[in-house]
Amino acid sequence: MHTLYDSLNSGNGYKGRLAMHLLRIPFRRVQMDLRGGESRREPFLSKNPEGRIPVLELGDGTCLFESNAILHYLAEGTPLLPDDRLLRAQVLQWMFWEQYSHEPNIATVRHWLLDLPPDPSRDALEQQKRKNGVRALEIMDRHLGQHGWFAGGRFTIADIALFAYTHVAEEGRFMLAPHAHVREWIGRVQQQPGFVPITHGEGYTPR
Amino acid sequence: MHTLYDSLNSGNGYKGRLAMHLLRIPFRRVQMDLRGGESRREPFLSKNPEGRIPVLELGDGTCLFESNAILHYLAEGTPLLPDDRLLRAQVLQWMFWEQYSHEPNIATVRHWLLDLPPDPSRDALEQQKRKNGVRALEIMDRHLGQHGWFAGGRFTIADIALFAYTHVAEEGRFMLAPHAHVREWIGRVQQQPGFVPITHGEGYTPR
Repeated sequence: MHTLYDSLNSGNGYKGRLAMHLLRIPFRRVQMDLRGGESRREPFLSKNPEGRIPVLELGDGTCLFESNAILHYLAEGTPLLPDDRLLRAQVLQWMFWEQYSHEPNIATVRHWLLDLPPDPSRDALEQQKRKNGVRALEIMDRHLGQHGWFAGGRFTIADIALFAYTHVAEEGRFMLAPHAHVREWIGRVQQQPGFVPITHGEGYTPR
Repeated sequence: MHTLYDSLNSGNGYKGRLAMHLLRIPFRRVQMDLRGGESRREPFLSKNPEGRIPVLELGDGTCLFESNAILHYLAEGTPLLPDDRLLRAQVLQWMFWEQYSHEPNIATVRHWLLDLPPDPSRDALEQQKRKNGVRALEIMDRHLGQHGWFAGGRFTIADIALFAYTHVAEEGRFMLAPHAHVREWIGRVQQQPGFVPITHGEGYTPR
């Protein structure tokens, strides 16, 4: 059985969690004490030298880090990842875009607001990230105005990767009201069979 | 034939360029005027809404953005990308790590030093990025102390992705001298048949 080293509030952790529920892949969750620094010391550093959750540990002890690589591993051979070479690259295109142009803006500001005390020395950087985050939402909204999903004409791991921090963007005070297509897409993701919310802390056990 | 919208100095552009030379895939290069804002206006924004190079345009006009998604597209079905599900995920793990923990530090500081006038208001952020960049090189060096390549036991697109900005890290004043395993790995990449340096501005045409 897989083990997901995780933190409930983390959108990056939620990606693998959600995928395993959707795909009905049994797993157990280990809630890490991130504030206590548990991810930045051994034995966790041997699982991920970067010291970050999530890590997916397979039954044989092999560890995978990077949330979107975990998604790719879980989805290979399932409807969540197309077989076609170009469609796969388009799925990955949006997943790399998520990690470079979306997450460092929207997720980071959300983290600062939710988890850290106020710090005026961050104001200039927060303003920059806020501007870039709004731009990311606008790019998503334009795409979703013409397409139901991000790639391959169907729900894929590109949607899961982008859903993770988009649907909680308002916790970082990024307003979703101006982005109607994004809001409709959020609703479509939430209707997928097996969907669980980010607050769902149970692993998946077949009934 | 493929068209690569590119800028010679860009490590992200170099990734696809290098892969097409190594794989002997015919392509032509379009040098973009980034300082003149050519990537941030139409018609380029229709190719990549993010307004960044590289973009790979296929013969039928389909455009792919995100350097590492371009690499994945080019390498699918070649020795540069394993078929095995876990090995593919490990290749992607290092490619996502590159875009999140390496490039925003090492490439960004290099860009500031090479392309922008000095700006003391960037000092605190540069210091942070410098610390994170050194940490990325240390993580690479530890990995390469135990493995010849990043994933799959052979040269893959994970190595190309990481080579792009690592081998020019000293242009951002990140010293490679302390990282002997990284330096040896750079030498191994440079010995791959078909290798071209980042300064090579020609597309690939079969002889």
